Amino acid sequence: MEKIYQGKTKDVYKLENGNVLLKFKDDCTGKDGVFDPGENSVGLQIEGIGKANLETSIKFFEILKEAGVKTHYVSADLDNVTMEVLPATVFGHGLEVICRLKATGSFIRRYGEYIEDGTPIEGGYVETTFKNDALGDPLVTKDGLVVLGIMTAEMYDSMKAQTLQITKIVAAELAKLGLDLYDIKFEFGYNKDEVILIDEIASGNMRVYKDGKYVDPVTLTKIING
Amino acid sequence: MEKIYQGKTKDVYKLENGNVLLKFKDDCTGKDGVFDPGENSVGLQIEGIGKANLETSIKFFEILKEAGVKTHYVSADLDNVTMEVLPATVFGHGLEVICRLKATGSFIRRYGEYIEDGTPIEGGYVETTFKNDALGDPLVTKDGLVVLGIMTAEMYDSMKAQTLQITKIVAAELAKLGLDLYDIKFEFGYNKDEVILIDEIASGNMRVYKDGKYVDPVTLTKIING
Repeated sequence: MEKIYQGKTKDVYKLENGNVLLKFKDDCTGKDGVFDPGENSVGLQIEGIGKANLETSIKFFEILKEAGVKTHYVSADLDNVTMEVLPATVFGHGLEVICRLKATGSFIRRYGEYIEDGTPIEGGYVETTFKNDALGDPLVTKDGLVVLGIMTAEMYDSMKAQTLQITKIVAAELAKLGLDLYDIKFEFGYNKDEVILIDEIASGNMRVYKDGKYVDPVTLTKIING
Repeated sequence: MEKIYQGKTKDVYKLENGNVLLKFKDDCTGKDGVFDPGENSVGLQIEGIGKANLETSIKFFEILKEAGVKTHYVSADLDNVTMEVLPATVFGHGLEVICRLKATGSFIRRYGEYIEDGTPIEGGYVETTFKNDALGDPLVTKDGLVVLGIMTAEMYDSMKAQTLQITKIVAAELAKLGLDLYDIKFEFGYNKDEVILIDEIASGNMRVYKDGKYVDPVTLTKIING
């Protein structure tokens, strides 16, 4: 297999059937040895975290598949810690799509004079930021993405609709475990004009509370994977 | 006349006919005695600048009126340095609406990895930022304005359409003087559900080039007022 990309938390191989194989690693993003899903560089290794994240991802991708939501997910091999996915191109040098169900974090840092921390956002709110550590992941609007040539308005609308739908499904699944999803971060890719969810759906991409208290990603993974 | 608001560059009075009177002052926003339209606090006084800005505003508001664009502008009295306007409420604690015809300034600081400084943006690009010095005037999306309860989606669409139309008219007027409009900053207000352009249309709100060189606001005012 030809390795086509070495990621921070995953290596990417090309398969003969035209699909792509993701090999989940135990490397985590973080800083000074502390796990932080918001960081964009590898900060530490946690034994078994690659497999645990794959397990979480399989769970959610299978639920989405059953719900009729097409994603890049094809199949997975938990023993070999790999996931087979459809090929897709990322937007720009990486674009994060955030869906907020309750206002917190950077949303409050930006707009705290207009909304209180923890306020529910009815129907959910979707925003996009460019991955760029030096610039603090700058926010970019739909119109901005269009004029920068990153995607068409139609692709944005599709991505936003999928984000709202997928977030609703993930939130409902977490609610069954007594967990309250505040916000979640996705990555989308495209193949021709079709936009689909790519990457993983794991604890590091979500901000989750239980009984009003924040649940850290390592604990969250244990709760979700059961 | 009852003074209802003391602004940084204008005082605001209530008129008996229900309209509002703006009294333009010689106070300028800036820092350390240097004029900077981007600053949000008064930094200096320039004798006659209130009158000069009113003259520029009259010119543009009259052109818009002739083009059938409704704004808050009713009439002006250059001798008394006042402008009579329709009453309107500002959005939130102040919202700036920027229209970019060429990419530069903060747009390049945010998205410079995707577009070169000075690149024309076909059709124009509109974005909104909250006035908040401490936060560096944070960008806010259409969806953000809606979930924060600042305006409805319909109000945003109206504001965006007006911004593109007004910018086109101002750019065409400046082009007659050999001037190239890169971007322009507006403020809108609302009266019931109707959104209209408020404040002023003066040199301090525009980034203009002549023969490829930036024209500072004081020089620009002189060129426009003739």
